[in-house]
Amino acid sequence: MLIEMGESARQAAFQLSQCSTSKKNAALNCIADLLEQKTESILAANDLDIQAAKDNAVSDAILDRLLLTKERLIGIANDVRKVATLNDPVGEIIDGSTLDSGLKLQRRRVPLGVIGVIYEARPNVTIDIASLCLKTGNAVILRGGKETVYTNKVMIDVIQQALEHVKLPACAVQSINNSDRKYINELLKLDKYVDMIIPRGGAALHKLCREQSTIPVITGGIGVCHLFIDECMDFDKALPIIINAKTQRPSTCNTLETLLIHASIAKQFLPKLSQVMADNRVVLHADSASLAMLKGTPASVLPVTDDELRQEWLSKDLNVVIVDSLTSAVKHIREYGSAHSDGILTRSLVNAEKFVNLVDSAAVYVNASTRFTDGGQFGLGAEVAVSTQKLHARGPMGLESLTTYKWIGYGDDLIRD
Amino acid sequence: MLIEMGESARQAAFQLSQCSTSKKNAALNCIADLLEQKTESILAANDLDIQAAKDNAVSDAILDRLLLTKERLIGIANDVRKVATLNDPVGEIIDGSTLDSGLKLQRRRVPLGVIGVIYEARPNVTIDIASLCLKTGNAVILRGGKETVYTNKVMIDVIQQALEHVKLPACAVQSINNSDRKYINELLKLDKYVDMIIPRGGAALHKLCREQSTIPVITGGIGVCHLFIDECMDFDKALPIIINAKTQRPSTCNTLETLLIHASIAKQFLPKLSQVMADNRVVLHADSASLAMLKGTPASVLPVTDDELRQEWLSKDLNVVIVDSLTSAVKHIREYGSAHSDGILTRSLVNAEKFVNLVDSAAVYVNASTRFTDGGQFGLGAEVAVSTQKLHARGPMGLESLTTYKWIGYGDDLIRD
Repeated sequence: MLIEMGESARQAAFQLSQCSTSKKNAALNCIADLLEQKTESILAANDLDIQAAKDNAVSDAILDRLLLTKERLIGIANDVRKVATLNDPVGEIIDGSTLDSGLKLQRRRVPLGVIGVIYEARPNVTIDIASLCLKTGNAVILRGGKETVYTNKVMIDVIQQALEHVKLPACAVQSINNSDRKYINELLKLDKYVDMIIPRGGAALHKLCREQSTIPVITGGIGVCHLFIDECMDFDKALPIIINAKTQRPSTCNTLETLLIHASIAKQFLPKLSQVMADNRVVLHADSASLAMLKGTPASVLPVTDDELRQEWLSKDLNVVIVDSLTSAVKHIREYGSAHSDGILTRSLVNAEKFVNLVDSAAVYVNASTRFTDGGQFGLGAEVAVSTQKLHARGPMGLESLTTYKWIGYGDDLIRD
Repeated sequence: MLIEMGESARQAAFQLSQCSTSKKNAALNCIADLLEQKTESILAANDLDIQAAKDNAVSDAILDRLLLTKERLIGIANDVRKVATLNDPVGEIIDGSTLDSGLKLQRRRVPLGVIGVIYEARPNVTIDIASLCLKTGNAVILRGGKETVYTNKVMIDVIQQALEHVKLPACAVQSINNSDRKYINELLKLDKYVDMIIPRGGAALHKLCREQSTIPVITGGIGVCHLFIDECMDFDKALPIIINAKTQRPSTCNTLETLLIHASIAKQFLPKLSQVMADNRVVLHADSASLAMLKGTPASVLPVTDDELRQEWLSKDLNVVIVDSLTSAVKHIREYGSAHSDGILTRSLVNAEKFVNLVDSAAVYVNASTRFTDGGQFGLGAEVAVSTQKLHARGPMGLESLTTYKWIGYGDDLIRD
């Protein structure tokens, strides 16, 4: 089954790669319109997923992620319209020159080809990814979570109708609707047809893809993010950044998980931190040094374990660790972090630059919240994923991350000496 | 064993990432000097490899690839000195802006970290790769072929001495000196320490790496390259390009393997082609249509098989296939090619652009020899490999391909709304 999908996706990708921006945008606008026109059938399908989820007694948080409403659907449609307004990177001449040999060489941006995306829950991801891939002239094979199988099916129908309406191949966007996990493994071996795999989900999914895929995989999305409060920092300036990084939306990958505190300020700073964390109902998980100092302060405090320092809370929980220097802070981040987003809060120019140079994460901040690591916030318009690996794309991946380039050499009947 | 190598390489990479360009260049120049000073011991070690190869009755061609001479060693040393003169991409600000939120965002070029390279024969590759990795602040773990085990050992010694001489960590360049293939498999799973794997060898090695590696792999180097001679082309302009692409250095991956000929000119063109190919002692492998037309012409002609159209000759053999249109030529290239280097010979501006758009190869040429696909020829100074995959780097990979970027965000105590 998947080989046929791969073949037709490859063929569709070839057609899409030759397609004008205006035609791609017409397809996107048509998807948005159809999403609104078909609200009733989409919400009916979504209701089947919701019922099934309730039967399986999933948590309210997951139910909320699954749920579509009329308003949410309008929001999704408008996001698609926004993608249509973004600049199309395909065709851009990245650079070029005339070489000594006389060869006129340029690098031109082209689509990647066929992209495979494996994701969990969230029905909006289906539309999101499909629209970003379409905009960049890529075909896509989607494999959503079993929790959204009804919603996905009707959404894929909508997309394919829109494609046919503008005379683009419907198989530019295909979906594996069978929830048998063996199809994930099959997709990961489809290297003859698929150019890139993007897993969007937890650590286990990323590990599976890294281990099983014969196709290049973009791993990411796991954010064990740190802020380090240096010895020279105004506490009243630091606290709002820490609150924002931890509480603005705790379930996201760019949320602060561990606060590193310079030893020389810990004693004065910790009571103030404890107060604002208590006000924001954040539970502190403290290392042994800070645990002692936090005793009797307003916040709930628990001792932190080594494992807890290595994983995402994704909730209103914050690890607190005292370090004796900037170097120790960097060492902690290199050892425990996931190379996603880490920052320093300081008034020292020297320390800021030292931190920026030493920390090898996708995004490094000086006096800013880690919550900025996001395609929209970074001015990319939208994002496909946040990469924490180093090849191809790092950090938030916008439309450009869905392209590659070809070298084009024009000669005047040119031979190599 | 490899875990220790990985750990120390990671540590060395951290140091190298903070190292100035002048210090890295000092290390490179020191390597070059030592290579010349130690000529005697290097040649003695190489002689052991040569003797072993002779005992194993390897071909003269492979013997020649293994062989070092004083002159070749001087050449290698000068190549290292040339890398020292190249621009260091590390630290470059790729782009940056101040966003609406006030965040001052930039992308800064940084080393990848630790690179694993698996290669066959050719002792110069050891020095080549090590110097390019050093220049870009990356640590490297090398795994050379068993045929060069003595030469590699002494070359790694030279590199490590040079590193120590300039007070850089010796384990920035390490080598797996055990020829047991299990260490390749172990290296491919070292994702905790190694950021990128570059295989330099045949199709089987690339396949092994794609299938076994949990680390991103750059595959490439396999070149089933095509030229298509369009119906409107001057034969006397086309022939020198075809001769150059096929014979200038037949053993390279950018050598022409299949010539596609527009049906409408085949009858007039084939006798002329046959004459120059005979003059250059090139054997033609013809499809059934051209076979009939080539009967009785000067060149040696054999019928071509489907398999032969899918693999590299790397010798003075050329496939000849007649196609009925540009579209059929593109279809043939997409079906049989390796997406390395393909070109069109034409006088038609429309056909040239059509070909450039439709052919999805790393390098696409108009009226130029495929032999140009090379880091040196492309003005990159040197190359680590030629990539035929689409992620990270495509085509010849220069120093920039050994880097990634980090996003750096400077805020004025900035939080996300």
